[in-house]
Amino acid sequence: MDNNIESMERLIYSFSKLPGVGRKTAERYAYRVLELDDDTVSTFAKSLVDAKSKIHFCSVCGNFTEADICNICKSRKSSIICVVKEPKDILAIEKAKNSNYLYHVLHGTISPMENRGPNDIRIKELLGRLDGVTEVILATNPDIEGEVTANYIAKLLKPLDIKCSRLATGIQMGSDLQYADEVTLTKALEDRKEM
Amino acid sequence: MDNNIESMERLIYSFSKLPGVGRKTAERYAYRVLELDDDTVSTFAKSLVDAKSKIHFCSVCGNFTEADICNICKSRKSSIICVVKEPKDILAIEKAKNSNYLYHVLHGTISPMENRGPNDIRIKELLGRLDGVTEVILATNPDIEGEVTANYIAKLLKPLDIKCSRLATGIQMGSDLQYADEVTLTKALEDRKEM
Repeated sequence: MDNNIESMERLIYSFSKLPGVGRKTAERYAYRVLELDDDTVSTFAKSLVDAKSKIHFCSVCGNFTEADICNICKSRKSSIICVVKEPKDILAIEKAKNSNYLYHVLHGTISPMENRGPNDIRIKELLGRLDGVTEVILATNPDIEGEVTANYIAKLLKPLDIKCSRLATGIQMGSDLQYADEVTLTKALEDRKEM
Repeated sequence: MDNNIESMERLIYSFSKLPGVGRKTAERYAYRVLELDDDTVSTFAKSLVDAKSKIHFCSVCGNFTEADICNICKSRKSSIICVVKEPKDILAIEKAKNSNYLYHVLHGTISPMENRGPNDIRIKELLGRLDGVTEVILATNPDIEGEVTANYIAKLLKPLDIKCSRLATGIQMGSDLQYADEVTLTKALEDRKEM
């Protein structure tokens, strides 16, 4: 049956471009599409094209927006800038309680392996936004590239007398000690807090 | 940030129509769409509309097809008809070795709970296809509705002297006994095979 229905195969192929979607999941999605009514499917198609054509980067922070400046930059006042690797990291941080920061999206991290240096990500743009800023939270991922990038930026900010911070790493809330990996556990012990 | 970018929200909403896709996964998919290039996204949109508009049911077996009669009905000769609930079940059975049957899609099962009787699914169409058929494999799911439907059809076929069979149930291949549920295990013991 595979590849016998051409339009079905093309749809399955499109779905398999999504993250974590293999052949089997793509097939399930494609079959569901055939069960949806015509209007829902055309709305789906339109929403793909619309999102792609209307959304671009905020000229200030680099987040996704339909306008020139994103809603956060437009409406929020804060002297704290939270620096992230990608726009979707903003979504994650916004879900945390009391996060009322401004953001700065680097659109990447420094990666010698992938030949990406400090000039290939939006560090210069960050330096241009520091007027009135009291703290920069370096919220890049706690992996090698994220650490390198955070350290690099922290070093640049040091002479400017701006507080630099990094998200705390440690055992995940609600998790089980026995499932924590060695590196996390070592770090959590090193960074233990007095009670 | 949620719902601030309207076209993004609509895309997330569309993705959440897919089976097993909640808000978080839909967000991940939507963010990936923004990373894809324009052509890929418009192909994706087109493949949705195309599949939905071009694919309909085979007039013989009820499987999905772009033509009047599906490829299996057109090209395959067999005296065995495998009866399934939905078109996607065909995909599953085709993946089994040596499956070279004709199919018949019921488009549902008998379900008193949902007020669906024998006349609401394609049983009459099955009865009209039995010329030259030697065996009917009742491959509805091994759940209550699937069993009821299979039994109902088997009773109809009895006087016609056509062999009726049902997929074997039992412990899953490659699985671990301790994870098998009670009902499956009971059935597997009842149906034990001499070696």
